[in-house]
Amino acid sequence: MNFKFTKMAKASFISLIGLMIAIFMPGIVFAGDVDLKTPEFSSAQHNMLYVGFVVCFLGLMFGVYQFTRVRNLKAHKSMLDVANTIYETCKTYLTQQGKFLGILFVFIGACIAFYFGFLEGKSIGNVAFILGWTIVGILGSYGVAWYGIRMNTLANSRMAFSALERKPLKLLNIPLDAGMSIGVVLICVELLMMLIILSFVPNELAGASFIGFAVGESLGASALRIAGGIFTKIADIGSDLMKIVFKIKEDDPRNPGVIADCTGDNAGDSVGPTADGFETYGVTGVALISFILLAVGFAFPDNVRDSIQSSLLVWIFVMRIVMVVTSVISFAINKAISNALYSKKDDFDFEQPLTNLVWITSILSIIATFIISYIMIGPGTEVVKIVQGSSEALKLGDPVNLWWVLSIIISCGTLGAALIPEFTKIFTSPKSAHVQETVSSSKEGGASLNILAGLIAGNFSAFWKGMVFFGLMFIAYFASNQGLSAIMIYPSIFAFGLVAFGFLGMGPVTIAVDSYGPVTDNAQSIYELSLIESIPNIDKEIEKDFGFKPDFDKAKHYLEANDGAGNTFKATAKPVLIGTAVVGATTMIFSLILVIKSTLNVEPETILNLLNPFTILGFLCGGAVIYWFTGASTQAVSTGAYRAVEYIKKNIKLDDKASQSAATEKSKEVVRICTQYAQKGMFNIFIAIFSFALAFAFISAPQGGDNKPVAFFVAYLISIAVFGLFQAIFMANAGGCWDNAKKVVEVDLKEKGTELHDATVVGDTVGDPFKDTSSVALNPIIKFTTLFGLLAMEIAISESFRDKAPIVGIGFLVVALIFVWRSFYGMRITSKK
Amino acid sequence: MNFKFTKMAKASFISLIGLMIAIFMPGIVFAGDVDLKTPEFSSAQHNMLYVGFVVCFLGLMFGVYQFTRVRNLKAHKSMLDVANTIYETCKTYLTQQGKFLGILFVFIGACIAFYFGFLEGKSIGNVAFILGWTIVGILGSYGVAWYGIRMNTLANSRMAFSALERKPLKLLNIPLDAGMSIGVVLICVELLMMLIILSFVPNELAGASFIGFAVGESLGASALRIAGGIFTKIADIGSDLMKIVFKIKEDDPRNPGVIADCTGDNAGDSVGPTADGFETYGVTGVALISFILLAVGFAFPDNVRDSIQSSLLVWIFVMRIVMVVTSVISFAINKAISNALYSKKDDFDFEQPLTNLVWITSILSIIATFIISYIMIGPGTEVVKIVQGSSEALKLGDPVNLWWVLSIIISCGTLGAALIPEFTKIFTSPKSAHVQETVSSSKEGGASLNILAGLIAGNFSAFWKGMVFFGLMFIAYFASNQGLSAIMIYPSIFAFGLVAFGFLGMGPVTIAVDSYGPVTDNAQSIYELSLIESIPNIDKEIEKDFGFKPDFDKAKHYLEANDGAGNTFKATAKPVLIGTAVVGATTMIFSLILVIKSTLNVEPETILNLLNPFTILGFLCGGAVIYWFTGASTQAVSTGAYRAVEYIKKNIKLDDKASQSAATEKSKEVVRICTQYAQKGMFNIFIAIFSFALAFAFISAPQGGDNKPVAFFVAYLISIAVFGLFQAIFMANAGGCWDNAKKVVEVDLKEKGTELHDATVVGDTVGDPFKDTSSVALNPIIKFTTLFGLLAMEIAISESFRDKAPIVGIGFLVVALIFVWRSFYGMRITSKK
Repeated sequence: MNFKFTKMAKASFISLIGLMIAIFMPGIVFAGDVDLKTPEFSSAQHNMLYVGFVVCFLGLMFGVYQFTRVRNLKAHKSMLDVANTIYETCKTYLTQQGKFLGILFVFIGACIAFYFGFLEGKSIGNVAFILGWTIVGILGSYGVAWYGIRMNTLANSRMAFSALERKPLKLLNIPLDAGMSIGVVLICVELLMMLIILSFVPNELAGASFIGFAVGESLGASALRIAGGIFTKIADIGSDLMKIVFKIKEDDPRNPGVIADCTGDNAGDSVGPTADGFETYGVTGVALISFILLAVGFAFPDNVRDSIQSSLLVWIFVMRIVMVVTSVISFAINKAISNALYSKKDDFDFEQPLTNLVWITSILSIIATFIISYIMIGPGTEVVKIVQGSSEALKLGDPVNLWWVLSIIISCGTLGAALIPEFTKIFTSPKSAHVQETVSSSKEGGASLNILAGLIAGNFSAFWKGMVFFGLMFIAYFASNQGLSAIMIYPSIFAFGLVAFGFLGMGPVTIAVDSYGPVTDNAQSIYELSLIESIPNIDKEIEKDFGFKPDFDKAKHYLEANDGAGNTFKATAKPVLIGTAVVGATTMIFSLILVIKSTLNVEPETILNLLNPFTILGFLCGGAVIYWFTGASTQAVSTGAYRAVEYIKKNIKLDDKASQSAATEKSKEVVRICTQYAQKGMFNIFIAIFSFALAFAFISAPQGGDNKPVAFFVAYLISIAVFGLFQAIFMANAGGCWDNAKKVVEVDLKEKGTELHDATVVGDTVGDPFKDTSSVALNPIIKFTTLFGLLAMEIAISESFRDKAPIVGIGFLVVALIFVWRSFYGMRITSKK
Repeated sequence: MNFKFTKMAKASFISLIGLMIAIFMPGIVFAGDVDLKTPEFSSAQHNMLYVGFVVCFLGLMFGVYQFTRVRNLKAHKSMLDVANTIYETCKTYLTQQGKFLGILFVFIGACIAFYFGFLEGKSIGNVAFILGWTIVGILGSYGVAWYGIRMNTLANSRMAFSALERKPLKLLNIPLDAGMSIGVVLICVELLMMLIILSFVPNELAGASFIGFAVGESLGASALRIAGGIFTKIADIGSDLMKIVFKIKEDDPRNPGVIADCTGDNAGDSVGPTADGFETYGVTGVALISFILLAVGFAFPDNVRDSIQSSLLVWIFVMRIVMVVTSVISFAINKAISNALYSKKDDFDFEQPLTNLVWITSILSIIATFIISYIMIGPGTEVVKIVQGSSEALKLGDPVNLWWVLSIIISCGTLGAALIPEFTKIFTSPKSAHVQETVSSSKEGGASLNILAGLIAGNFSAFWKGMVFFGLMFIAYFASNQGLSAIMIYPSIFAFGLVAFGFLGMGPVTIAVDSYGPVTDNAQSIYELSLIESIPNIDKEIEKDFGFKPDFDKAKHYLEANDGAGNTFKATAKPVLIGTAVVGATTMIFSLILVIKSTLNVEPETILNLLNPFTILGFLCGGAVIYWFTGASTQAVSTGAYRAVEYIKKNIKLDDKASQSAATEKSKEVVRICTQYAQKGMFNIFIAIFSFALAFAFISAPQGGDNKPVAFFVAYLISIAVFGLFQAIFMANAGGCWDNAKKVVEVDLKEKGTELHDATVVGDTVGDPFKDTSSVALNPIIKFTTLFGLLAMEIAISESFRDKAPIVGIGFLVVALIFVWRSFYGMRITSKK
């Protein structure tokens, strides 16, 4: 691992370990427990879950089928070679990440073991079992990332080559098939794991296994998102700036930054979203499962409660399974439509079929939701009859509305998954007013007004999307008032969680359109890097070997246009993912609140209120941490990019095309720089995030019978969710706007190499860490902090530890502040002198 | 007024008025009232307040004396002429702003009249009386702005001329004397008004008058901050970008943007902070006064309560008066020290004496705080004896600690006012790591990494300052636990308010060092614009008329160095002011919470908690509005700057120095462009802010006995405070960092005109609206929304209106959204084509 600890880091690291041992030593025993035991399922319910298994297996087969289909496509050797180089670099990168995840697991594993072993008093075997699920979670995030990168590095060269064939429909299908393969596989693996826990893990361990699994996923996704985000943008800025400095074009093979850039596209845009999507899909599920186990049906006798709980659990899983099916069906329908519309066209808008796919899936899923819900929990179904038959129903209300109330709420999420992309386009699509404004402002105002215009787009997008989330959540709240309280407490919290859950319901499609981008992006690069146009007699060779006459000009045009569509849809998945963090925040925090309630024996409302000064202090700290994170992740990119630019400027040889081995050597050095800063940056950030969670949780421990401090951590969690939402949307869309403004100047205005173009390149590079580093990492970080915070808080408020907790908390705060300090002062450009 | 309503604006405007009439028509009667009656004062207390009057008068005399001293300094006619042109342009600008404030007053006045007239059932005479105080508040903000601008436009030319004398100490003293004059006058006027209300207004009207006064101040300050911020930055960017385009130097008289820039420096950096400081000083006071009248001593019999309340009120005022005295004494001490240290030096660091002044004042104020508090409310004083003598004291606690507890809390604020500037320097001072990083990153990375480095500085500063606020508030909370509950409920809320109050305790000095900047900035411009070096025989003329030999080179050096110091200290006051908004937010919202409690007859904790979905929704909307505001204010600057640049590029004549009248004509046109967009931008923003406050308050009205919605508005207010804090700090310091990075390249590296310089100019122009438009306007806007929201909420929850309130609220929301829409789509660059 190319990563050296400085003395400072070592000292901090050791003190951190010391602190952890200090906590573990006292051997605290059993504290407040929250019962996460799953109910027994009826055999009918078991059967439904088994259908789920079947669907998942079919889904996996579909994924593998698509994978094979893409792999079997032919491409010219020059392109396959480049793709292979990219894949090899990706492999090295991912292997290093894997080691790093191992280190992080030690930290988290210790906490989990401590929590379940000491606090919950579970046996060593059981603890090992739960830890096993954490590892499965990490491996899951890591595994789908591998799958995604392999799929993409097969699809990219095939797409680049297909471009020569002058069949644009094929160019739409290759990345979409690849994306759909990734999306379906990812979702099915996730669902399989959860179904296994639900169906086969003993009831008393199932809840804990879910939590362990979710923490593992979050850990993996956070690390992969942060490191990938830093890596990709160092490479991207590094190679982009050369365009201005040396007036060379994009993907010039003489530029040693280009291979790193291609690897980065995968590390950032493929690994990141797949791990993130995997995590999000899982965690929103776990949040709902916990809620159901903790807050549903407790006003009823045990058997009725079990019946409600098991019905709701099964309903939730069936919803997911149904939407996997609707996603695949919609994919087929959309393919048929595309074939009908475009198969004979020489040119069409590549964004349109992607938009169609999203809307078809959304509408189909909503229809299916209502129908299946009616069948499962509608009037006259068994669970409804059981509730109606109990004497409590008279008091709490008739559950007859349940089916449509739940359908409306989950459909808010499904609708959101289609609506949010549309809102994204308002701010980032090449035709949008904001992108146009960014281009026109650059005409008189150069880079200055270009930057301001992009920031404005980001700001406005944060407002309007905030309003969309507000609207969706308000509808969900309103619906939850129409009868949910008949079976649960705090129905609106459940409703928010269900919306977040719905956001990723049509996950296969959301991931598929998101994965479109890295493939098209790579394809364009591979085309240039392969130097295919300059191979002697290439026309004839292709005609002989592949049976068609290549059209080079048209090929470049197709690839360029496809890249634009890829950009747009890469931007659309981000806010959907981040939305799940904030919309679901309340639900995720709910378990924590119940822990507080049962351990401290208080009504949560009496502590967690706005008149408690700790609430205000918690909000403050949440905001501070989000801003720090933005700065720290950007700093890693900025320093790395500086070093990359420095290196490339010195080593680029514009006159010497020949020496291939020297070029490879240089490319590797750039990759090394990217990796080094990605690792360093990620390490500082992760330790700080982790220490903040422990610090703030421990500082929140009640003192001398005063429970007020507890509000501090809860407010902190809510604060990072809400701050994170706006910061992420702002950054993602500002970045998207700059990116496409540059695209407009290049493609529509054809002004490459002009001052106007230079101005837009500045915007694009500023936007790079905005859209692909800081913003995208916020979602997994928020979720990780929340899930991990649940454990930290349980430790903090346990009776025998709570007195010491604040002191230990201050210790962790000091560690966190040291790493915050390092995340700038240890990462400075000048520090290397 | 150079401002045209578009059809759209007209329609929205009319619908807004229509909506307001719709609310007023029903003639709702008396709803929940909160008793803001002030207690009777003893004659000893009256005497103390009278001493306050005397101090204020002395302070005003001091201010006028300083004013005269500066005015009597001599300067060359060429410089006086330029200064006069600047002042004349400022006058035109301020007159226009005055008209605009009149329009805005109609809106707010209607609401105030409605609230006190209908809801509180006060007589027409009394309502007129309260409205009178609102007008006094607006005039106060407006008046001190005038005073500041007059003082500055006298000081600027004197300073420019003094630079020739080679006596750097004089160059320190002129802007500092001027600043101190503004600071003391501003604070004394504010204090006088408040003392008048406290001493002479009938007790039952005093509370209402305070509120009316505070709303007026906030209105004035918000409008002046927004418009001034937009104006100044349009001009600044407009003239700055010419440096890159035509390679001309700063303040080149051939650049038609320069006069507008000088005017802007006053409109933004002088008018803004004086109005803002005036408002902040007032509003933090009013928040505390309200708290004392609503939450102090109610567990005791009436006479004891009155005694505690009156003692605390007098204590608060005495604290302010004492700090005016310590500020002036510190100013004198610092002057003596500076004389001793620098009078014979040819060169010294201009920042040092300013830093000294801040720290001397802070330390002196803290010492005085403890001594005077001991005398006034220490052991054995009358109020303490009275409380100790009451039977309730046994139960609630002995107030013997009161004096030091309150002293510690208020000193957190005083300390903050010295500490926050130090933290600002870490991110914005030319020697700071962040500024250095910004410069070095620009070397390889050009404008791209320059922008990123500045953003990073802003992000990190938001984190660390957030931690400072957290620390100060935590100490205050801790201190408040040491006995404050003996005399009041919710002592920590009072403590937070007292910290905010303390932030501006040493207001005269805070304002003085802030006002240093616009004077030095103008002085540099005037020096260049006067073309004094090219006047024939100027050496001899000066020697004959003024008695010294001018040194032109040294003069320019002094002015440049002084401008750097001015930049740094301009940056330091901003976070102090914004800090008051968030630290004081809880206290300001407190009255609102008590209104809710008494009107709805509930314990606030049961509604205002984190499990209430409306709390989450409120947070969401607060964040959204802050991001929108950032975008909208930047858009106004960006469009205006585009037009200015477009105009200047077309009309600049580099070869023709002669035609003075043509140049004046062109300068006027640039001023016109600045004014036009400042007005348009401000109008959209203000109407939206105003409508959001009404909309969200009205939507929060309880429905069908469900009080939960009420949390929505309270959470909204807290959210805009916390979001606003971070956004403001982030933007202010990022801007400061870019600004000084440019300065470093110009002064230290002497690389004007190079590519590196161009890169830093891009950063500087991006930072312009960051530091001087969006960030600085957030403080008055948050305060205005909170104060005005108190009235809006009272209307919303009144019994006869609450059923209709949400519908009206949705109406206002629509209006707000229309103006949000207009704030981008109505302000587009391309829209003029």
